[in-house]
Amino acid sequence: MKIIVDGFGGDNAPGEILLGCVQAMDELGVDIALTGDKARLEAEAKELGVAEQLGKMEIIPCGGMLTMEDEPTSVIKEKADSSMAVGLRALAEGRGDAFASAGNSGAMVVGATTIVKRIRGVKRVTFAPILPKSQGFFMLSDGGANVDCRPEMLVQFGLMGSVYMEKVMGVKNPRIGLCNVGSESHKGDDLRKQAYALLSECKDLNFTGNVEARDLPYDGCDVAVADGFTGNMMLKLYEGVALALMDQIKGVLTSGLKNKLAAAMVYKDMKQLKKHMDYNEYGGAPIMGAQKPVFKIHGSAKASTVKNALRLTRDYTQSGIIEDIARAVGKK
Amino acid sequence: MKIIVDGFGGDNAPGEILLGCVQAMDELGVDIALTGDKARLEAEAKELGVAEQLGKMEIIPCGGMLTMEDEPTSVIKEKADSSMAVGLRALAEGRGDAFASAGNSGAMVVGATTIVKRIRGVKRVTFAPILPKSQGFFMLSDGGANVDCRPEMLVQFGLMGSVYMEKVMGVKNPRIGLCNVGSESHKGDDLRKQAYALLSECKDLNFTGNVEARDLPYDGCDVAVADGFTGNMMLKLYEGVALALMDQIKGVLTSGLKNKLAAAMVYKDMKQLKKHMDYNEYGGAPIMGAQKPVFKIHGSAKASTVKNALRLTRDYTQSGIIEDIARAVGKK
Repeated sequence: MKIIVDGFGGDNAPGEILLGCVQAMDELGVDIALTGDKARLEAEAKELGVAEQLGKMEIIPCGGMLTMEDEPTSVIKEKADSSMAVGLRALAEGRGDAFASAGNSGAMVVGATTIVKRIRGVKRVTFAPILPKSQGFFMLSDGGANVDCRPEMLVQFGLMGSVYMEKVMGVKNPRIGLCNVGSESHKGDDLRKQAYALLSECKDLNFTGNVEARDLPYDGCDVAVADGFTGNMMLKLYEGVALALMDQIKGVLTSGLKNKLAAAMVYKDMKQLKKHMDYNEYGGAPIMGAQKPVFKIHGSAKASTVKNALRLTRDYTQSGIIEDIARAVGKK
Repeated sequence: MKIIVDGFGGDNAPGEILLGCVQAMDELGVDIALTGDKARLEAEAKELGVAEQLGKMEIIPCGGMLTMEDEPTSVIKEKADSSMAVGLRALAEGRGDAFASAGNSGAMVVGATTIVKRIRGVKRVTFAPILPKSQGFFMLSDGGANVDCRPEMLVQFGLMGSVYMEKVMGVKNPRIGLCNVGSESHKGDDLRKQAYALLSECKDLNFTGNVEARDLPYDGCDVAVADGFTGNMMLKLYEGVALALMDQIKGVLTSGLKNKLAAAMVYKDMKQLKKHMDYNEYGGAPIMGAQKPVFKIHGSAKASTVKNALRLTRDYTQSGIIEDIARAVGKK
């Protein structure tokens, strides 16, 4: 299996991307094709002492870069020569089995839709991050790809999430919850009421009804279905609250000698907790609904997170879920 | 000043409500009128040893109760004899200066709108909780009163929040942020784009642009403007993530002797942090836009939280913000 990786996407590119790819090649049994400026990649590899490993990767050369400031649609126009656009086209042309990037999420969604193209019957691709809960994790679908949604899109976000959680994350019979302002079936706006009715009719889906946001960090469901606007607000608030609280606890544990001593005593356990709460651990988010696997690596990913993300990209690719999604949307 | 209090609203009614009212009367210099079953209130007061204090309160007797399971609209129909409905009518009739209840928020919103009635020009009342951030607090407006919103409603949520934060909470020139999926002005759905344009035109408002949810727990703004659907999801997620994380930290600090010892060493500081993060500390949420002050006390409030909420209700009433809101919406 060959994963095409955007060599110049994300905050720590190309260095950490390169190192993550080296780890992935060593540990995951995948081949890598890196997109980007060949000379810069080679210079970086030399500096990092991985020139030999880079030699085992394919380089798909291109000149440009797409940044966080670029408009999402630039991936098909002004930035068609960027490492992201070139990678997406390489995937569409069959030069690899999957594409992963730590770059601009919006541009990846546009690229997955217009370059890789949607599975027949899929109305919108979904950007579906994995988030920690008290025990384990859950998926948020959609986490921001689509700010305007119709009810049937929400149903598909649930379907795609269900397949991914079962096949890639190993969750049996995933519970699909509709994010809503109350648990009763009549709650919410028209979008929620209609989506509730449609989800209830899905025989293949373990739809467990509405889920309130307060229950998500506990064990509200395995796939939380939301429109992309609400989903994005929730995703970022989740990150923000967890980070702010961890910062404050760090503040407590580093103020004064007595507290520092206490901190040393719980260091290992707190570190483990921090690791569990760190969404980086899950590497990123699949973009589902495209004809081939596209995976968003966390923007701030360092080498080990890049490797984690590439493992999920591999599993996503091997799982056959694209066939399953095509069947689920009933057009194949 | 006389505050009418729903004697039978909330998880801990009537006992904790009664005790909170006793504290408020003692410490805040307010008079209290309690609504509810007179015999039950007197029996409870006797049991709690506050019969004498109850004697100093007015009792507005009624037979019914409105529960969390009741439909919000029941406050004007089936549950017109409930302690909440009777209290709202007493406020409308001028038998007190403000009304506070720890009961069903949805019913309070309906009652504030239909019984107390909106200020001329106000399109929708807003339910606006105060939430902690790293330093201090911010207001979320709307936190769930209105699942369907038009742009001009969001503008009014911002206006009302601004007045409240300045006059009641003492925040100078409050920064108003529009909750959105990105900070740039063109981000979001049509509702956000139109609201952004309208907010930018408000000369009297310190509109600081879009705010991403990740920045709210830090210092993103003083008033976070949202439609009630998104706001309610955010409010509950905020509570859920903070609670889940505090639970997990408690788990770490109580597992094994060494950790317990460490916990004892940081106990005071952690308790202070927990207190800061506890939204109960802020007592509740004003329901703004009605012709008289209506205040939602936290459903799980105990006596001291009830007292805190009644202090805010008093300040809300004394602040004159209802006049200010009327002026701000430009119809007076």
